[in-house]
This record gives sequence, structure tokens and C-alpha cells, in this order.
Amino acid sequence: MVSRRIAEVLRNGQPDESLKVQGWVRTKRELKGFAFIEVNDGSSLANLQVVLNQDLPDYDQFLKQLNTGSSLEVVGVLLPSVGKGQRIELKAQTVKIYGEADPDTYPLQKKRHSFEFLRTIGHLRSRTNSFGAVFRVRNACATAIHEFFQTRGFLWVHTPIITASDCEGAGELFSVTSLNLKDVPHTENNTVDYSQDFFGKPTYLTVSGQLEAEVMAMAFSNVYTFGPTFRAENSNTSRHLAEFWMVEPEMAFCDLEGDMDLAEAFLKHVFKHVLETCPEDMEFFNQRIDHTVLETADNIINNEFQRLTYTEAISLLEKADVQFEYPVNWGLDLQSEHERYLAEQLFKKPVILTDYPAQIKAFYMRLNDDEKTVRAMDVLAPKIGEIIGGSQREERLEVLSNRIKAQGMKPEDLWWYLDLRRYGTVPHAGFGLGFERLVQFMTGMGNIRDVIPFPRTPQNAEF
Amino acid sequence: MVSRRIAEVLRNGQPDESLKVQGWVRTKRELKGFAFIEVNDGSSLANLQVVLNQDLPDYDQFLKQLNTGSSLEVVGVLLPSVGKGQRIELKAQTVKIYGEADPDTYPLQKKRHSFEFLRTIGHLRSRTNSFGAVFRVRNACATAIHEFFQTRGFLWVHTPIITASDCEGAGELFSVTSLNLKDVPHTENNTVDYSQDFFGKPTYLTVSGQLEAEVMAMAFSNVYTFGPTFRAENSNTSRHLAEFWMVEPEMAFCDLEGDMDLAEAFLKHVFKHVLETCPEDMEFFNQRIDHTVLETADNIINNEFQRLTYTEAISLLEKADVQFEYPVNWGLDLQSEHERYLAEQLFKKPVILTDYPAQIKAFYMRLNDDEKTVRAMDVLAPKIGEIIGGSQREERLEVLSNRIKAQGMKPEDLWWYLDLRRYGTVPHAGFGLGFERLVQFMTGMGNIRDVIPFPRTPQNAEF
Repeated sequence: MVSRRIAEVLRNGQPDESLKVQGWVRTKRELKGFAFIEVNDGSSLANLQVVLNQDLPDYDQFLKQLNTGSSLEVVGVLLPSVGKGQRIELKAQTVKIYGEADPDTYPLQKKRHSFEFLRTIGHLRSRTNSFGAVFRVRNACATAIHEFFQTRGFLWVHTPIITASDCEGAGELFSVTSLNLKDVPHTENNTVDYSQDFFGKPTYLTVSGQLEAEVMAMAFSNVYTFGPTFRAENSNTSRHLAEFWMVEPEMAFCDLEGDMDLAEAFLKHVFKHVLETCPEDMEFFNQRIDHTVLETADNIINNEFQRLTYTEAISLLEKADVQFEYPVNWGLDLQSEHERYLAEQLFKKPVILTDYPAQIKAFYMRLNDDEKTVRAMDVLAPKIGEIIGGSQREERLEVLSNRIKAQGMKPEDLWWYLDLRRYGTVPHAGFGLGFERLVQFMTGMGNIRDVIPFPRTPQNAEF
Repeated sequence: MVSRRIAEVLRNGQPDESLKVQGWVRTKRELKGFAFIEVNDGSSLANLQVVLNQDLPDYDQFLKQLNTGSSLEVVGVLLPSVGKGQRIELKAQTVKIYGEADPDTYPLQKKRHSFEFLRTIGHLRSRTNSFGAVFRVRNACATAIHEFFQTRGFLWVHTPIITASDCEGAGELFSVTSLNLKDVPHTENNTVDYSQDFFGKPTYLTVSGQLEAEVMAMAFSNVYTFGPTFRAENSNTSRHLAEFWMVEPEMAFCDLEGDMDLAEAFLKHVFKHVLETCPEDMEFFNQRIDHTVLETADNIINNEFQRLTYTEAISLLEKADVQFEYPVNWGLDLQSEHERYLAEQLFKKPVILTDYPAQIKAFYMRLNDDEKTVRAMDVLAPKIGEIIGGSQREERLEVLSNRIKAQGMKPEDLWWYLDLRRYGTVPHAGFGLGFERLVQFMTGMGNIRDVIPFPRTPQNAEF
């Protein structure tokens, strides 16, 4: 008999059906002459209630072994459940125990555990309700992302993880090396002898696949990356990871308007897909983690995003009847408090700010005719803040070369990137989205370490 | 007017339709009074033939500018094509040139270029027919993989790229560090002072996500990874990359039979999906790259894989009327020539070998009752050789601890992996597939560097 997943049984199972399930015991409740075992196999938040009757052979032995965390296979018959909380339950006919979990040492006994504690048992925490829900929603987000781009004819491209360029100047990089750190070889003039290193030069973990995605967009028109990126920033906050996944679409023949249209459609699609495919998990987050997650999702799905320029935003912030901690001045970057004021208090829906001052944005963003602002955009969402950052790219060779020089970088280091402007250049645009932040906002989880299976943060690379 | 993708126009376009396309010039052919421009936008191998008539304003200027590699937008009307090779063509009404490509310096002029040369211009090579086809097929493979697992209820899990364990003992690892390589800090007893490093200990780039995937399978039953993995092996061959993507499904409540069933269904699905979605590209590979790729695909899709044990295979190889270069002996690993003999000459279809000698396989594979062999499996395909390696995992705590010790490793370093056997252990199994090898075999491309956008190999981390 082929076993069935519990999510499917809870959805489709009919009284009198015979079936087999396999999973782990969440709780056990003994009553006179029988016992209820809640079994979970990770396919859903809800457990399947299994009824063990005392006429089952080895009943007493089973009850002794079937503690929280133990694994089993049950063959039985579905019955309508008389208890509340479930439509059906499984009356066990045969039980097979695969593995026990000693109640004296198994750390996940039935009680509330803090997320801090659960991080120390990252190899077991996915067996809890919260983390089960998080990783099902994470998978649904990832699936929604691929679905969104694939149905629109975008190619998924894999940009390199190991890179020899620190072109974005995004700052703190991890070095990748095959040299023996105990005894790094040096050249005569006392620099590192990289000729002995694997790649023959210094290499790093990528901070973004954008520049390479632009290469691919200049051949396939529409592409996206979805892969890991890295920051060696010593930021011990609830919103920073040293290793995280990023989504970066890039479109040829596209300006900032098209970029904003894509970003808006993208966010709406992902939120909608998750609500449709994980309603039970999203309800759980709304009840137990953050009472506003469904409202936030609804706000994103059902509102046309407000679009305005940075300059307009500054003037609105200057007029605001609010005491901000940080100064508001044209030319300064916006702080989280400013972004949240705009999205939450003023417009009460997602806002896209465009045309930021050139000096606070990256070299590759397209310079406007005013020569002071660039065609950048940030998507700000209520309760969330900045969730997407993007831009139309500078496609003019001369302007780009000058911008590179102005930032103290060498155009020759970016020869291949400049070639894209030299040969068949086209207007193009794209954006980046931090995948874990998306999952964090979707679920309301307070700490970003709790939305990735094995978080990497300063002093922490466990499991 | 919204522009349309060329693949879609070639498929659905009807005479007299007005439309806009955007792309890059592949070739230009001037005739008396008019010219043909072949335009490609990366959506298909085939170009759209655009007809420029001399009555077009600026006709002469356009012809001068529209060289191979230049980018343009054309608005026009579809007409039935009188020339052979295409059903329809686009008669241009207005043309807008975005960017030129100087024919004296643009490296991709209309002629055959060697793949070696094209590797030196990795930022442009995707604009050729071969690489266009490769990366469309690569995307189709990736999509097929997600589709296969998602429809079967597997969760995509992201296992860590940076890891503190070299548990597989897979050998050569890249170090990841935030230390300054010029001046690595040392402790008093002259070892590296890792307390100053980002993670406070030595860290590496992962060689496999399997152990962490097992963690997730013990909560969600069925999961898969699909992400980058690394080897710092100094292998300058046509089948090795230092950075490559790997797919690793892991299933709880599954034995080696189930694992083999999954591997077989998986390969059939991916090949079928690519043939269905990229018929033109696959036809191209069959004609231009390797005349056997369609036959190989057909062989994989339409044959039941032959299953036999390593021991049976050794006895068949010993009886073979073939002179092998490497010795055949129970206990020795099989060489490529042996694997190809079995798949190509003897069975003429994919073969799954099982139950290899324990001493040539990894510590986590389940020990058979004979205590000499383990529940490993390798899938060997004609023309391809080994394409998948997998196993049922050792789920018994005692046996696993002993195997770890026997391999000179410390069980305490794998405390969390052993915990999976301590608490609710279940039979489980999985496999690994090198994604670039799959794409290489699918397309018949001779060098694995030509199936990943930006290959990383010894002395090479360009772009």
C-alpha cells in the first residue's frame, strides 16, 4: 500500500477509506482504553489524529514508545471524528515504529520554546509548527517567483558565486582562496602571491549577480537570477544575514516605467500565490506571530502602488507633521522612519520612489537630463519598508565611463561591462529583491535568522 | 504598441498583423532596392526576417548602421514570406536604432568561431546560435527539475553555501574568510587565529547540501536542494568545474527501491520536458553538435532502466569479450570504460548499479547485512556514463557512529547529524545530480565550460 501525505488525507480523505501514513508523533493523549496520537509529516501545519485502541496488539508497548518526536507508520481506516478540531481521524489497524525519541533528552517536548533556543537546535527546529510553516511558505514564495518569470518568458540564469571583481563597491567581501591560511605565500615585494591561488588572482563571494545578468539580458532580452549572495558585514541585527538569496530580474528594451510595472506585478503575484497555496500557514502567522500579516498582504495585492519622485517625497516629508529622528534634506538618503511614514501614514499603501540623487546611488544607474538624479526606484511597503531596489541602467558608453571614473573605479576593470554599451546597447532595467526579507515580511517573523534553514551571521556557521 | 517576442511571432504571427519587435541584428543582406535583416531577441534560435524597402526614410543610413550586433526596434506588418526558410517576414514601416556595433571591432562577425575563442568573450557568446540554444535548454532543464519535485510535494530547501564542516571528506575545499590574506593573524602557538575571522572558526564553500537536506527531510519528508556547490580540485578537464549547480532530493520513509524509482522518473521527466519545450534547440544540437543527442534522449525516455548489483556487474565485466584498460576486480571502483560498456554495449539502455563495496563509498550509506556492501546506487546512461549517484542513508545510530569512526572522523563533529538517528529516525534515501553534466549530456556540448554562463576553473574567474 502506497502511503499518502497527511495534507492530502486531511483535504480529501473520506470515511471508511483504508490508507497508510508515515510521520512523526507531535503529541500523545492517553484515555481509558485508547489513546490519541497526533502525527505530522511536514506536509501541513495540521496533524492527523490517529486513534490507538487497547485491543491493538502490543498496545501498551506502543504507548510507551510513541513519545513526542518518535517516527511511525500507521495503516488504518478513516472515521469521522467526534472530537472537535478535525473532520476525520485514522483508526489504527497496524502500527510500525521506526525510531523512538527519549522524552528525557529530546529537546522538543510539547511546550513553547523561544526562537533563540530553537536556533541552537537548527537541526530539529523545522519539526515545530512555526518553522514548519515558515519553510512551507518559503518554498511557496520561491515557486511563485519562478512561475512569475517563466510564464513571462524570462530565462533563469545562474550568475557566478565566486567572482574576481568587487565592481559594485558594495563593501565588505568574503575572500575565497585555496591558499593555506597558516602559511600564505608572499611575493618578493611582500604582497600575497596570488599566482599560487586557485584562480591566479584574488577572488570573492558575489554581492550581486546584476552585472552578469545584464550580460545575459543583452542576448535573451529578459532574464532573472535567483541565487545566494554574500556580505561580510559585521551586522548583528534581526535583518542581516552574511549569506542570503537574492532575486534579480533584468530586462532589455525596458525603461524605469516598465521596471516599476514589473516590480508591482511581481509582488502582487508572490503574495497572492502564497495566500492561495498556504492559507493555513498564513492564518497561523496572523494568529501567532504578527496580527497584521494578512492585512499587509491584502494591502499589497489590492492597491495600485503610489509612484512619486524622491524630490516630491522630500517635499512631503518636510511638510509632515511628525518629528523625525533623522534630518530630511534633499541629497540625504531616506531612513526607515521616512519610508514608513510615506507608506504607512501618508499613502497607506505601497509606494515607489524614483529619481534619487546620483551621489547616493550606484554608478550603473541611468543619469537623468538634470545630471543630478538617476533613474533609480525603491519600492516601500507598509509595515515592511524598502523591499525592492532597482533602476534603469546607464546604456550610454560615454556617460557610464565617466560615472565609473567619478566613483574612483577603473573603466578597464569593467571592460566587458562597457562592451555591452559598445556593441548593440539598448535601454534596460532591473531590480533586486532580498529573498529572506520577502519571507520575513510575508510571515511576520521578527528575526531574519528564522526564515532561512541554516543562517550565517557573525560568529555563527553551525550545521 | 507593446512589443512582441520573436519566438511568439514566428509561432503565431499572421499575415497583415501590425506589430513591434526589438532585438539585435544577426545578419544583413542587401539586394537591389531592399535589404533583409535577420533579427534575434534571444527567445528562439530562429530569427525574424525583417524587410527594409528603399522607400523607407533614411534607408541608406539604416543600412550603414545596421551591422551584425546592432540593436533596433522595428514596427511593421507581417507578410507571407516568399523566400524559403521562413513562413512569414516583417515589412518594416519604422525603424529605430538603439545601438550600433562597429564591424571593425565587434568580435562576433558572421562566421564560425571556435568555442575556445568564444570562452574569451563570455560576455558576448550568448549572442551566438550555439550558446543561445544552450542557455535556453539549461533554463528548460532547471524548470523541469522544479516542476518535477513541486508537483510531487517536495519542498525546495536552501542549504548553506558557507559551511564549517568538511564532513563528506570530499577533499579539496575553498576557504572562505574575512581575514586579510596579506597579514593573517596567528595565535601564540602559531596557528591561524580564527577568533578574528568572521565566523570565529575555519569555514569553507560547501561540496554538497546532502547532510542538511537530511535535516529538512526529517521534518518535511520530501525535500530537494538546487544550488551551487564547489570543488577546489585542480582538474583542467572538459568535465570539471570549480563551481557548479547540484540537485539533491532527499526522502524520508524511502528505501533504495524508492530512490531508484524517483531517479528514473526524474531523468525521464527532464528529458521529455526539454524535448517538448525546446524542440528547435534540440534539433540544432543534433545537427550541429552531436548527432546522437536525440537518440540518447529517446533511449532514456523510452526504456525501463536495467537494475543490477555491483557484484553482478563485476561478474558480467569479467566475462566481457572486451579488453579494458583498467582492471576489473570486486572491490575496485568502476571506471568510465566499464560503465559505458554496461550501458552502451551490453544493455543498450540506462543501467542502475546498486550495492557497492562499503570501502569505496561514503560513510553515510546504509550498510547491508553482508557488512561488505552498502545501499548505494549509480545511474549510468549510454553516451553519458554516471549521471546520478545516490544511496539509502544509514539510519541506525550505532552503525552510523561506527562507520564514522572507522573513516577516521569524529562523531562529535557530526553531533547534529547523529541526532537525526537519535530522535525519530526513519529509513531515508536520496541522490545527487550535477546540473551542468546533465545539460552537457542533454546538448552534447563537448566541454562543460560551455554549458554554464560564467565557468570557474583553475586560473579562470573572468567576468
